[in-house]
Amino acid sequence: MKMNSKGRAVIISGPSGSGKGTTVKALLEARPELKLSISATTRLPRPGEENGVNYFFVSREEFQKKIENGDMLEYAEFCENIYGTPREYIEQCVSNGEDVILEIEVQGGMQVMAKMRDAISIFLIPPNRQSLEKRLRGRGTETEEVIRERLAQSYEELKCAEKYDYVVVCGEMSKCVSDILNIIDSEKLKSELMQDYIKENF
Amino acid sequence: MKMNSKGRAVIISGPSGSGKGTTVKALLEARPELKLSISATTRLPRPGEENGVNYFFVSREEFQKKIENGDMLEYAEFCENIYGTPREYIEQCVSNGEDVILEIEVQGGMQVMAKMRDAISIFLIPPNRQSLEKRLRGRGTETEEVIRERLAQSYEELKCAEKYDYVVVCGEMSKCVSDILNIIDSEKLKSELMQDYIKENF
Repeated sequence: MKMNSKGRAVIISGPSGSGKGTTVKALLEARPELKLSISATTRLPRPGEENGVNYFFVSREEFQKKIENGDMLEYAEFCENIYGTPREYIEQCVSNGEDVILEIEVQGGMQVMAKMRDAISIFLIPPNRQSLEKRLRGRGTETEEVIRERLAQSYEELKCAEKYDYVVVCGEMSKCVSDILNIIDSEKLKSELMQDYIKENF
Repeated sequence: MKMNSKGRAVIISGPSGSGKGTTVKALLEARPELKLSISATTRLPRPGEENGVNYFFVSREEFQKKIENGDMLEYAEFCENIYGTPREYIEQCVSNGEDVILEIEVQGGMQVMAKMRDAISIFLIPPNRQSLEKRLRGRGTETEEVIRERLAQSYEELKCAEKYDYVVVCGEMSKCVSDILNIIDSEKLKSELMQDYIKENF
């Protein structure tokens, strides 16, 4: 029984070390009908990368035009390339009744929230201070200085948790995934979204 | 892992024929740690009924005093007896970290909402017009006139759905129960309620 004809955009964010990437992967495995937002970038495709699958590959001019037209929900520049979240794909999914996940950095997530008021925003956190530090160190590829910087940035980003709708602890993965799926499902039962169902069935 | 130290009051309401009673029974079976709000009444106990279990049995004077002191979240008079929801038991449960279910008529539910701003309010509806009529007729004990009146009242009450936080369709019982449990669990992940967790663990 389909309750709502529209899907929802679901922002999944959290500091470095919160487990965003692993969680989103597990989430898509647990519910394959979820769509994943595709970023746009001005960098060139690497071998094997496909346009519209890994990224939307666009020229810097096209990207600038999309920004000017308000077609980018958020964007940021890294290493001389621009990366961003195009509004169009998300809106297509939502109007097709599909839920679409946006895995995104903390600042970008807040930019998207400001532009898509009805997006569900979820902030992931590690279980505690120790696990955050362990995860950041666990990559084993960084100097102590870089790790200290990352930790400081993650603590700073934790302050943004209150700007998000929900906070989910990313400890045991199956619990984290079921928490997120419960949030998505419960949000669809909000009374304002159920008015159409009532009108159609009574 | 306990995320919140406080429990939540959960108002479960809906029109006559929505399936409130059956749903609340199934909900308590599915999650036995849920508490059920105990009503107060001025009527005398029937054989086998216990004070503080089936009802809080109080005199009319005591009841009036509780109303005047603001100790009743809602009340109504039926057949010369007053029935109501005492605030004290609910607040005890909530501060003990227990979730407490209030099964309540539509108007009473709205009275409670106005007095307990942080209660979760859930409005149950039957799947459609046909099933509502079938449920009201199914009792088989009422005249056609009474059934018509009940139906009219149920339709009138359906308009109050939008005043509640959530609307849950009460069709297949296991789905209805899991929807309600998901709502209760997701509400605890609201970011404002997770701030204590973040403060304690980071």
